[in-house]
Amino acid sequence: MSAPTAPVVILVRPQMGENIGAAARAMLNFGLTDMRLVAPRDGWPNPRAVAMASGAAGQVLDRARVFGTLGEAMADLDRAYATTARGREMTKPVLTPAAAMEDARARVAEGGRIGLMFGPERAGLENEDVARANAIVTVPVNPDFPSLNLAQAVLLLGYEWARDSLPTAPMPTGRRPPAEVAANGRDIAALADHWEGRLDQAGFFFPAQKAPGMKLALRNLWSRMPLTRADAKILHGALRQLTRHRGGPPPAGD
Amino acid sequence: MSAPTAPVVILVRPQMGENIGAAARAMLNFGLTDMRLVAPRDGWPNPRAVAMASGAAGQVLDRARVFGTLGEAMADLDRAYATTARGREMTKPVLTPAAAMEDARARVAEGGRIGLMFGPERAGLENEDVARANAIVTVPVNPDFPSLNLAQAVLLLGYEWARDSLPTAPMPTGRRPPAEVAANGRDIAALADHWEGRLDQAGFFFPAQKAPGMKLALRNLWSRMPLTRADAKILHGALRQLTRHRGGPPPAGD
Repeated sequence: MSAPTAPVVILVRPQMGENIGAAARAMLNFGLTDMRLVAPRDGWPNPRAVAMASGAAGQVLDRARVFGTLGEAMADLDRAYATTARGREMTKPVLTPAAAMEDARARVAEGGRIGLMFGPERAGLENEDVARANAIVTVPVNPDFPSLNLAQAVLLLGYEWARDSLPTAPMPTGRRPPAEVAANGRDIAALADHWEGRLDQAGFFFPAQKAPGMKLALRNLWSRMPLTRADAKILHGALRQLTRHRGGPPPAGD
Repeated sequence: MSAPTAPVVILVRPQMGENIGAAARAMLNFGLTDMRLVAPRDGWPNPRAVAMASGAAGQVLDRARVFGTLGEAMADLDRAYATTARGREMTKPVLTPAAAMEDARARVAEGGRIGLMFGPERAGLENEDVARANAIVTVPVNPDFPSLNLAQAVLLLGYEWARDSLPTAPMPTGRRPPAEVAANGRDIAALADHWEGRLDQAGFFFPAQKAPGMKLALRNLWSRMPLTRADAKILHGALRQLTRHRGGPPPAGD
């Protein structure tokens, strides 16, 4: 499940067991499984951590190793990144998560072992901790509201670690009209309602047990089309026209 | 703080007030401020949401609008993305967060208004909800452990929205040696300890009130250097050699 070269996550003096458990869950979402704890405040194992991390995340906790000092926890690492809420006044590179994980992947490709350090919930890493890292990682959040918790910081780094191994190209969606002429959500909903209503009257949604699926397929169709407002107008008009002359066989077989 | 064109976040039938509050916090981290609630289970306003979202995130809740149906909530939107835990069997594009937000930025640049839909915590969006969206967004998590909660899903989408407006190029870190010859964390720590100890004996860390800062600067220096194991060996040897012949003036002024 986890590549052996995935980054190690080092929680330095973590405080709340719940947060350790939540961090294990966040890690495992992106295939990180090697957790190390430096001097956890409430000792180890911690039942609150276990309660938070059910299932496979519990195994991350079971395998977590505890160290007395950060130096011991990172002894076998080739490169370590210190996550901080803001840049520190240190002569050390400050990277975005994207840049840090790009750097990390390059190191791992060369056979290196890397670690991500996270500080205690309340105060973050001490300068002495950061001094042991090769670089600082700061998630660029809204400066007026920086409120990432420990598990969220772990989640974003894990996401960036996995991100570029994931497909990023959008599937073809059809060429969409420019926004100023495109039909908006209200237009599409009105069109879908209109068609559904008229088709319902026409007996289109038959047999009854298939009706929900047919209605769903139709709504999907409208929302998937790159329609302009003019297109929507035409489709409304066409529908009205079609139903005006009803009298022949119902269009159920169309 | 928030660009007026930032995506709208639509929580469809959210259940727990705490999660609505946590979603507001996650939004604001990346400058999203327009929250819309469709038929929140416990009514609105919700004191548990308010308790979770302190400060500026409380203002996101204050300004949140409540709608009876998803259709009303998305009436003024030009494009909507439905977040789901897995792809659905629908003929609709399934995008990664990266691809979806790239698409969203292009629409917004044309003057479009976009929305991100999130389903109820337990079950996610219904097919009827997804049918109203133009595309599906799925965060590619570990298939053996997909455990994103509502606020984490909002966080990752918000992060992707903001991500490409952020600097991504690493600052220069110096050319680092290949991993097979690079000094690892243990090597660097041993070197730092050795130097610190010998310099301490030599009276380098003077005056006493400046000593912590000087030690920190030195540790930063070692961890920032692209040292090989051979380099570390040389620096250990040089240090031993330098201190062996002590007797002249202490090296404090070097």
